[in-house]
Amino acid sequence: MIQAGIVGGSGYGGAELMRLLAPHPDVAIRTVTSRGDAGTPVAETFPHLRGVVELDFEDPQQAPLADCDVVLFATPNGVAMEAAPALLDAGVRVIDLAADFRLTDPELWRRWYGTDHACPERLAEAVYGLPELNREAIQSARLVANPGCHVTAVTLGLLPLVGAGVVQPDSLIADSKSGTSGAGRRASVGTLMAEAGESLRAYGVAGHRHQPEIRQVLEWVGGPLELTFVPHLVPMVRGIEATLYARLAKLETDVQALFESAYADEPFVDVMPAGSQPETRSVRGSNVCRLAALRPGNGETVVVQSVIDNLVKGAAGQAVQNLNLLFGLPETRGLEGIGLMP
Amino acid sequence: MIQAGIVGGSGYGGAELMRLLAPHPDVAIRTVTSRGDAGTPVAETFPHLRGVVELDFEDPQQAPLADCDVVLFATPNGVAMEAAPALLDAGVRVIDLAADFRLTDPELWRRWYGTDHACPERLAEAVYGLPELNREAIQSARLVANPGCHVTAVTLGLLPLVGAGVVQPDSLIADSKSGTSGAGRRASVGTLMAEAGESLRAYGVAGHRHQPEIRQVLEWVGGPLELTFVPHLVPMVRGIEATLYARLAKLETDVQALFESAYADEPFVDVMPAGSQPETRSVRGSNVCRLAALRPGNGETVVVQSVIDNLVKGAAGQAVQNLNLLFGLPETRGLEGIGLMP
Amino acid sequence: MIQAGIVGGSGYGGAELMRLLAPHPDVAIRTVTSRGDAGTPVAETFPHLRGVVELDFEDPQQAPLADCDVVLFATPNGVAMEAAPALLDAGVRVIDLAADFRLTDPELWRRWYGTDHACPERLAEAVYGLPELNREAIQSARLVANPGCHVTAVTLGLLPLVGAGVVQPDSLIADSKSGTSGAGRRASVGTLMAEAGESLRAYGVAGHRHQPEIRQVLEWVGGPLELTFVPHLVPMVRGIEATLYARLAKLETDVQALFESAYADEPFVDVMPAGSQPETRSVRGSNVCRLAALRPGNGETVVVQSVIDNLVKGAAGQAVQNLNLLFGLPETRGLEGIGLMP
Amino acid sequence: MIQAGIVGGSGYGGAELMRLLAPHPDVAIRTVTSRGDAGTPVAETFPHLRGVVELDFEDPQQAPLADCDVVLFATPNGVAMEAAPALLDAGVRVIDLAADFRLTDPELWRRWYGTDHACPERLAEAVYGLPELNREAIQSARLVANPGCHVTAVTLGLLPLVGAGVVQPDSLIADSKSGTSGAGRRASVGTLMAEAGESLRAYGVAGHRHQPEIRQVLEWVGGPLELTFVPHLVPMVRGIEATLYARLAKLETDVQALFESAYADEPFVDVMPAGSQPETRSVRGSNVCRLAALRPGNGETVVVQSVIDNLVKGAAGQAVQNLNLLFGLPETRGLEGIGLMP
Repeated sequence: MIQAGIVGGSGYGGAELMRLLAPHPDVAIRTVTSRGDAGTPVAETFPHLRGVVELDFEDPQQAPLADCDVVLFATPNGVAMEAAPALLDAGVRVIDLAADFRLTDPELWRRWYGTDHACPERLAEAVYGLPELNREAIQSARLVANPGCHVTAVTLGLLPLVGAGVVQPDSLIADSKSGTSGAGRRASVGTLMAEAGESLRAYGVAGHRHQPEIRQVLEWVGGPLELTFVPHLVPMVRGIEATLYARLAKLETDVQALFESAYADEPFVDVMPAGSQPETRSVRGSNVCRLAALRPGNGETVVVQSVIDNLVKGAAGQAVQNLNLLFGLPETRGLEGIGLMP
Repeated sequence: MIQAGIVGGSGYGGAELMRLLAPHPDVAIRTVTSRGDAGTPVAETFPHLRGVVELDFEDPQQAPLADCDVVLFATPNGVAMEAAPALLDAGVRVIDLAADFRLTDPELWRRWYGTDHACPERLAEAVYGLPELNREAIQSARLVANPGCHVTAVTLGLLPLVGAGVVQPDSLIADSKSGTSGAGRRASVGTLMAEAGESLRAYGVAGHRHQPEIRQVLEWVGGPLELTFVPHLVPMVRGIEATLYARLAKLETDVQALFESAYADEPFVDVMPAGSQPETRSVRGSNVCRLAALRPGNGETVVVQSVIDNLVKGAAGQAVQNLNLLFGLPETRGLEGIGLMP
Repeated sequence: MIQAGIVGGSGYGGAELMRLLAPHPDVAIRTVTSRGDAGTPVAETFPHLRGVVELDFEDPQQAPLADCDVVLFATPNGVAMEAAPALLDAGVRVIDLAADFRLTDPELWRRWYGTDHACPERLAEAVYGLPELNREAIQSARLVANPGCHVTAVTLGLLPLVGAGVVQPDSLIADSKSGTSGAGRRASVGTLMAEAGESLRAYGVAGHRHQPEIRQVLEWVGGPLELTFVPHLVPMVRGIEATLYARLAKLETDVQALFESAYADEPFVDVMPAGSQPETRSVRGSNVCRLAALRPGNGETVVVQSVIDNLVKGAAGQAVQNLNLLFGLPETRGLEGIGLMP
Repeated sequence: MIQAGIVGGSGYGGAELMRLLAPHPDVAIRTVTSRGDAGTPVAETFPHLRGVVELDFEDPQQAPLADCDVVLFATPNGVAMEAAPALLDAGVRVIDLAADFRLTDPELWRRWYGTDHACPERLAEAVYGLPELNREAIQSARLVANPGCHVTAVTLGLLPLVGAGVVQPDSLIADSKSGTSGAGRRASVGTLMAEAGESLRAYGVAGHRHQPEIRQVLEWVGGPLELTFVPHLVPMVRGIEATLYARLAKLETDVQALFESAYADEPFVDVMPAGSQPETRSVRGSNVCRLAALRPGNGETVVVQSVIDNLVKGAAGQAVQNLNLLFGLPETRGLEGIGLMP
């Protein structure tokens, strides 16, 4: 059994990692850490794990992380970059669900996250953990940067278009909408139910950290481009729907065929029939990204709809997918869960 | 007192008209009709109106509509076009909250609504009831076509840009999100709470009836243009947020100043400070449209956020605003209600 | 104009007081205080009040509270008891929306709120501000203790039964359900949308502070009794529904007639027809309490359903009702708002 | 592989049966019927089953139901009683998720469901499918009546008390709250999101069909008793929370020990530590019932909180649990899913 450690277990990413890894046939959860809840049973904080996870939270300084085969960081930005180097040196593989190793340019990190990067020399060995883009590199990686939630929904929806060079690179618009669990399990006024319930608003309109990340990923495959990204907070708990707009450079493009071909062999990307309108609940709790693409009125603009569960394909599920790749397991192992509808 | 009749009183538009007109100091509700509920007290269907509206629903065939000064149709599309001509001939003014008189071209009606228009000869006298665009024409109108809900949010957000000719006319994108009350008070699987709750999806991606209406309005002020419009269904009851994207043709444009100037004298359009992110709940129950506009990263793309209450500024409130204009009343009369937050 | 000061203006109680008092024809809001937001415009925190309240929040130490005719405390428990005595001595009338002056026994305060009462000598002059019970006393009061939200819903539903002595006094059960705005506008994990959304749970089952308050009120009219009170957190923003159970001592009681008679003259209590099932949205934003009472199967148990808006009749609306009484105004002044449905 | 047929596959019960049975290692879904959707792919109606269920809906008259080992009816009340006898005669085992075989007295059926029972002679062989009560009988049954959703939550919470004879049998009160999926996937005004969202109300206060069913079950173990049952509609999709009240006849009862002992060996009933407040989301998507019981203030009244997922333990999950028992499989087979939180 692969021994896994989870750092930052009292948030939603950590809870979701436990939901997925506890029944995983090839993984044993060795330790789950939480500074705030150290010493208390995991199942006290998360009653849905009663009878499933029997561990207590451990203090991250004392937990046997170095004895693990892999450590998953479900921590706020900035934590993994401090702790990962020692673990990597000890031969432990690391998957970071936060942003610490996503941007390859430390200067970009400073600009968007406001601090100096703690281990810029490690950025080169970090592999960006979007399996649909980087499968082979992930298989031999030691340090995986798990993509952002909006980023996953947006890039999976735009990659076929950008990769094929069929859209104008300065025409990309991503209007993304997320449930409030994306903001994490931290006390905050803005995501109180009484603030975020029965209301809708955009956020980060002037600039959001996922914008440079999306742009970096798309530029890897399509060269320089411009992207306008506007995230929105939706009065629901789970789910991201991104509606993506691009202007076709090649009007003869068969968009449906392009998408079906691009994702024909992907276990977790489902291209729906032409005319479909995917809903977030169809992927609730599952690791699937559902896509639909069309050209309204057969015009120049292509519209792509992309839905994921922000905590699964947008976080913990994708991390388990990466873990499977890291250890040579079937990529879908432990990720067969079906969306919970309604 | 102005004698008002409401046709189609058992839907949300009708209920909201009653909420606004019952305490209106210059209007008396003479009759409220409903085919299905005729003979039963209004307050039995709508307990929030207990003690406020003491009328019974009347059958539309028997109700004293011709004795009214104004009749408001809160009916499904296609009803007003049958009944309005006789009322107009009897000297009654008509405000239609449905789509019957919105499109000036009967051919366009046929294409989007699937039937021949019942009174194409009346289309010329219908005035499109967006006061911010057509205030003077409404004041002397006899037949007012109240705008669609998405249309109101989208056009108020784009009019300053299109009117000033500062954006590329083929670059317009409207990503609009609506609560489920926009679908009306009709039994339907798709808007059950168990279907629409805790989920998000687009609809009408291939083509929605509000698209030609938005385009018609914007072309009145800006000439030929292209618009991609994608509406979404949000798990909330009231509210529309439209995020609008356009590419600037004139990069020197001061977007904030343009919007502030355009709406300086408008009682129901509130341009928020630069950097604001309006939320739908700030206008819940009120007739206000709140707007914010900015250029992310000072780039070529301008992003406008526009929020309204779909049942107020997007329907009944705007109808009362039009009624006030029709009868020479102060435009804000009866519409002073403050948004209900939280 | 009555000069009113609001202390603790950055919470939901304060915001709702402003929504109700700003358009009140006899009241001027002189000052609104907030320690955290002092110096910033009220409308920045509460955009729904843009154009309605033009004040900045003031520091409570510097605000001209002593110059007001009445000061309303919308503060956490324990604040008003420190500040009220000096204001009262200065001739200012005080309405406390928190719990400080609700319990007449300072020992009971200590047991349930965990601190010594700061001015036990003032408890005797405090009048419990439930107008349906204490109208006359409120009219001549100087210090009003505004009732708790659950308390209002529960006591209005039980008072007719307890007052008439027709139920067994040891049989009272109150199963009350509240939206999350009742927990206030404070950062907290438990009322995050991602925690409280799409889920239901009881809270305070072992003992909740509203239980002794309900019991105190009911015992004033009915003598010693036993009450089991269980509050629940509902995934919605506003509203309380309390379902109340009692065993009839007098089986010949006509429950419907008893309730209609008890509340015949009350402007804000609406006894619905027999068999009704009031919904919280029928009172959303309004100061009305809607009640329905029946005996299922004509048995011994009477079931009462009581709905209020927790922020209006359960807090700010009732405070304005008390203010009207204090100053000899018509009791409904400024409280004519109709419930927002849907 | 056990060949299973699902009748009424286009509702939530049917969809949930497919979610649970498709990956079940011992069951093959042979056919899924739907009168309305016959001929169309299941995954078109239910996109969350894309790639999981490849069947088309079949017409119930033509589907190979008689070739199945077991047929599960997820149909409206009254359907199974017409079709089950022929299947039973053909040697097919039947599990009915509707109410047709729940009440043992056909006269009680007539009174509450308004029709004559179609096969009263079969009622004697029907086994009430609450495994915690009837495990042995289910193992040898041919016809299983799957319990109602409210009934499951309420009876599991009251059985230990009633079975041990420690509460007064005329003191039982069940205040139960359900998400709207309990009303099924039928077009209806009352469960539209715009009607049921952001609001709470009781229903069936005068008498609900689950009341005689609860009473029947409890009387099997505890003799004659009185029960007041009030269901409520909660603005969420899944979940039932029942708060149960009873007066202790034996004040020396250790309620916690009684519950722990009663359910010590039950795989799907989780008695939480004293003082817990179970939330519905802890069982979302899972077959677990979580219970907590306590005596507030150590008084005479015992309060039990019981949460289930209405579509799993309250319907499809319990049906699969019964199927496992019918065919001698481990009871938890295919039901290991962990609650989806948040």
